[in-house]
Amino acid sequence: MTRPVVGVIGAGQLARMMLAPAAALDVDLRLLAARPDDGAARAWPRTVIGRPDDADAVLRFADDCDVVTFDHELVPPPLVERLAGRVTVRPGPSALLAAQDKAYQRRRFAALGLPVPAFAEVGPGQLHEAASQIGHPVVVKAPRGGYDGRGVAFAATPDELEPAWRAVGAPDAVLLEQRLALEREVAVLVARTPDGRSAEWPVVDTRQDDGILVELTIPAAVAADTAQRARALAARIAEELDVIGVMAVELFVTAEGLMVNEIALRPHNSGHWTIEGAVTSQFEQHLRAVVGWPLGSTVPTAAAVASVNVLGRADGIDPSEALPAALRHGDAHIHLYGKEPHPGRKVGHVTVCADDATTASARARAVAAELMGTP
Amino acid sequence: MTRPVVGVIGAGQLARMMLAPAAALDVDLRLLAARPDDGAARAWPRTVIGRPDDADAVLRFADDCDVVTFDHELVPPPLVERLAGRVTVRPGPSALLAAQDKAYQRRRFAALGLPVPAFAEVGPGQLHEAASQIGHPVVVKAPRGGYDGRGVAFAATPDELEPAWRAVGAPDAVLLEQRLALEREVAVLVARTPDGRSAEWPVVDTRQDDGILVELTIPAAVAADTAQRARALAARIAEELDVIGVMAVELFVTAEGLMVNEIALRPHNSGHWTIEGAVTSQFEQHLRAVVGWPLGSTVPTAAAVASVNVLGRADGIDPSEALPAALRHGDAHIHLYGKEPHPGRKVGHVTVCADDATTASARARAVAAELMGTP
Repeated sequence: MTRPVVGVIGAGQLARMMLAPAAALDVDLRLLAARPDDGAARAWPRTVIGRPDDADAVLRFADDCDVVTFDHELVPPPLVERLAGRVTVRPGPSALLAAQDKAYQRRRFAALGLPVPAFAEVGPGQLHEAASQIGHPVVVKAPRGGYDGRGVAFAATPDELEPAWRAVGAPDAVLLEQRLALEREVAVLVARTPDGRSAEWPVVDTRQDDGILVELTIPAAVAADTAQRARALAARIAEELDVIGVMAVELFVTAEGLMVNEIALRPHNSGHWTIEGAVTSQFEQHLRAVVGWPLGSTVPTAAAVASVNVLGRADGIDPSEALPAALRHGDAHIHLYGKEPHPGRKVGHVTVCADDATTASARARAVAAELMGTP
Repeated sequence: MTRPVVGVIGAGQLARMMLAPAAALDVDLRLLAARPDDGAARAWPRTVIGRPDDADAVLRFADDCDVVTFDHELVPPPLVERLAGRVTVRPGPSALLAAQDKAYQRRRFAALGLPVPAFAEVGPGQLHEAASQIGHPVVVKAPRGGYDGRGVAFAATPDELEPAWRAVGAPDAVLLEQRLALEREVAVLVARTPDGRSAEWPVVDTRQDDGILVELTIPAAVAADTAQRARALAARIAEELDVIGVMAVELFVTAEGLMVNEIALRPHNSGHWTIEGAVTSQFEQHLRAVVGWPLGSTVPTAAAVASVNVLGRADGIDPSEALPAALRHGDAHIHLYGKEPHPGRKVGHVTVCADDATTASARARAVAAELMGTP
């Protein structure tokens, strides 16, 4: 076989976790890394250095590839369009735009009749009027560039609207949304192939702290029909957006039912449990999908799986200092991303498979706490 | 933490399968590859090119490492000794010698009172006398350099002794052994740390064709007390040889009980099932052990696991040509080693986890057959 040449724009931890399946399936992976010490660049030989918004670098990189995919959402949409004119880009520009622009995403999902919170896209002068129509509390979001809680702020009262707008970077337009009373937050990962086949993994419970995903567990503590609806929603979004590759759909579980929060069109933190916890990991599945190969089984390998993120410590000590101690927990799968451990930054995760979610969660938390110095 | 710098001499598939755990635990791995296109060299950035018997290359490579370990047995023992004078070598020279020299290994095991077949180390002039003492049929082995059935020949009658001696390369001395009637062949993998802790994985059934390992299954179809004795033998050998790292012990199951066949002091084909089939893979465990970190759990992740090797096809077609078809078997874990697919050469393996060994084996065989064009 001519080995498929897959270019990944971005070389962070998501690209880093694609390396193992790329080696196993002998995919000829190429990385476009912003910096030589990016996590994936440190663990793979075929790396080119270039910024994701540098058109020359991106287009030159793509010339050697059969298909180009992404580790992040940082390639500007016009450049994605140009890229798609020269090489197969998966997922495609239209689908990517929905992940890159939260306002566009909301409009598109609302037009499809998907359940979304009440929202408005407004300039700073219309904040008060829009918020009073939606009803406080509201969420203020920068349409672009947010992650890990950045670009998102809350306004419980009209007084808090302007500070929230400034907190998200004072953009020309913001996405204003109803702040829902959440029973829980869940996610569904789905992968879809160029010929329209798709496969979801089981619904995962996600726990956020300050907008940062800190823990995942399967099975999610939701009713079977809710889980079924969540999976169906993810499959429908994948189909409607013509997604190719892995997509994460974050959902709110509310008293009124499921609401779509956000999507990511790439392997996602909410799927890290799949490396050991599912027959096919999200990283292998993404490669299968973008190459156009058949999808693998998404069945879990254990009754319960928990993954807990490891964040950079406030005291500046590198969590990897505690690796030998953490490894004494012999049932845990520890993943370090090779990143500078700035406080609060995701620098790794720990996964434990067990017979029940409570045990898996407690074990994974204990190991992550060991690494973070918070036992 | 200062990341441990682990040098691996050799960059074949065993080193290649160490890369995923090296990335996950952020080990600063360095490879000494004989050729730039060796399997592991193609999937890791920090690779130096040099032959394993080139003292300058090996010693220079080791200067940058905290600890040096091996992908193969090809470093000449005197060079291993010199290496150990300059850097921490794991496993150490004395243990390595037992894996490199089958005659030395037999003498050492016999002196320890371990069960081994009757044997003699003889020059070509003593073949007949020694064989008549041991009793035909006998096995003729080159003490060094054999693998995958090479360096091993059989003599059912005295007439076949000289052809067997020539078949193993006509060395100055051969190891002559009693050819036992085997009920089955099994293997035990064990890992041991510098402070003497060890952990075995469950006994694995191994099936050989023409001396080449073709299939592994757990649980092994042996009685519980046999399995217990096999694990105890492996642990004892690890202790007696002061092994650090992973060791594979290949055992014969005979009517008279267990006999030690051979050992390998590194991750081994008989442990490939551990990547998906055990909480800790042999590759992660080897890194943990040689760095001096705690060992991980060796508990299986499924009731049964089978791995089937993928060999280069006689018709010259690269098995990877059939990868898209093979990937339709969505429950299989396919590993390709990125090697030139010479006929009969191990170029990959397929692992399936299932509820029983028969199912796991049948599924893994089907996928391997798809790749090998022998359905």
